[in-house]
Amino acid sequence: MFADILVERIKEKDNISVVGLDPKIEYLPQEIRQRYLSETDAILEYNLRIIEAIHNEVAILKPQLAFYEAYGVEGIRCYEKTVAYAKSKSMVIIADAKRGDIGTTGEAYARAFFTGKAQADALTLNPYMGFDSLEPYLSFVEKGKGIFMLVKTSNPCSGDIQDQLLANNKKVYEHVAEKVRQWGEKFKGSQGYSSIMAVVGATYPEELKSLRMAFPEMMFLVPGYGAQGGTSADIEGAIDSNGLGAIVNSSRGIIGAHLKSDKSFEEATLEAVRAMKKDLNAIR
Amino acid sequence: MFADILVERIKEKDNISVVGLDPKIEYLPQEIRQRYLSETDAILEYNLRIIEAIHNEVAILKPQLAFYEAYGVEGIRCYEKTVAYAKSKSMVIIADAKRGDIGTTGEAYARAFFTGKAQADALTLNPYMGFDSLEPYLSFVEKGKGIFMLVKTSNPCSGDIQDQLLANNKKVYEHVAEKVRQWGEKFKGSQGYSSIMAVVGATYPEELKSLRMAFPEMMFLVPGYGAQGGTSADIEGAIDSNGLGAIVNSSRGIIGAHLKSDKSFEEATLEAVRAMKKDLNAIR
Repeated sequence: MFADILVERIKEKDNISVVGLDPKIEYLPQEIRQRYLSETDAILEYNLRIIEAIHNEVAILKPQLAFYEAYGVEGIRCYEKTVAYAKSKSMVIIADAKRGDIGTTGEAYARAFFTGKAQADALTLNPYMGFDSLEPYLSFVEKGKGIFMLVKTSNPCSGDIQDQLLANNKKVYEHVAEKVRQWGEKFKGSQGYSSIMAVVGATYPEELKSLRMAFPEMMFLVPGYGAQGGTSADIEGAIDSNGLGAIVNSSRGIIGAHLKSDKSFEEATLEAVRAMKKDLNAIR
Repeated sequence: MFADILVERIKEKDNISVVGLDPKIEYLPQEIRQRYLSETDAILEYNLRIIEAIHNEVAILKPQLAFYEAYGVEGIRCYEKTVAYAKSKSMVIIADAKRGDIGTTGEAYARAFFTGKAQADALTLNPYMGFDSLEPYLSFVEKGKGIFMLVKTSNPCSGDIQDQLLANNKKVYEHVAEKVRQWGEKFKGSQGYSSIMAVVGATYPEELKSLRMAFPEMMFLVPGYGAQGGTSADIEGAIDSNGLGAIVNSSRGIIGAHLKSDKSFEEATLEAVRAMKKDLNAIR
């Protein structure tokens, strides 16, 4: 079960951090940029050096597909090589693709992300189309893959749909969380966590806390820490009595740390990772 | 405005059909399959021959990204070459990617689909994250691109989230349709249709009809016709007094038609396209 693998890796590194690998060309050190004609080649070196620098401290890597797809074929090649390298370093890979589609289309996406040399360990999905959009992935969940369904996202307008009040007095995101719980019931690991997990933003601490209380078996992937404004205090309510229950993503705050530092690229990145780990371990 | 381009092309071909290019290896004629070592090369020939056969009859092509992404880098190359070819034949391309992400991630997706040689004319998006997930695309909408937001999807479990009753007595999908209307108000073409359009499934004819009445300026992309069970009678309520208001997708019913026919691959495909056109024109 993915839930068990995730918990094991978190405990191994004593770290609930997730590093979001969302490479933008302006994040790359000048010394890397100037040595390549191709942006994707430069990004690949940047990615591999980040992974090399951090893999002893951080268990989980979350590449955001959009930043690779923006480069077309070369971008996908860069994504695949990045994932293959991170896997060779035993990192848990969450492909942040927010896909949501049904039937044979969903099956095709499941194949795209969960098979082949560059396969991810988990994938983010959008719940709007309902259970059909999760179903094609379940045979992979049985074999150890994980799913993170969007529940309450970290962006300012997430309430447009997610916060709408239902006739039963629940909000849409609470209804979605309940569905995620039902869908995940059959996929619990030995610690009680389900391999069908949820995305809940650090920027909504009250919602994070109330979802934690309502769904003790649900692991949260928490975006919005750091550059987006979320602090460890905002996340505290998401942590359960085992010091688990949430994994916390930072992208820019880690992979862009060297831009604000006098240290070397690798040292600055590692320092940012260690600071985040310390900050998060203080609330566990 | 995309809305004007779309209406013009529909009128030119007198056809509201959309051909869904969701290639599966088992759809390919044996004669194509046996001539290639690479599945994606075979799919590319299959795609180009379909486009060649149908482009005089059909204005709109909707490639489903998942079927290309499933093949990794080679699949994306196949998608790009397919789109470039269809554009050389002046077809309108709707990239069915159902993306939904925010800020710089959304911008990266917008760049991926709306720039470069293989750029689509329109893109499907998932509304769950709210307005932020549409915003990065709006500068492209100003320049003539279109967006189709999922509103009421054709799949059996679409009600899991979309049909939930809100405290204001509307259903979630009706609330989403109202948001889509608001978001699209600034992007109306000369015929009154907005370039921010909606996806509403043929498998829910009552919903289709009531959305048509409530949102006269909203063009619908209607999946679910043919293989998924929707008929022209189910779609009739989506057609407005101009004989427009809806474009109707068929994938398997067209690109798999040759499997059930004695005619050649091209002839069978064209025959299916003509039958669909006739069927849909009867309700316009």
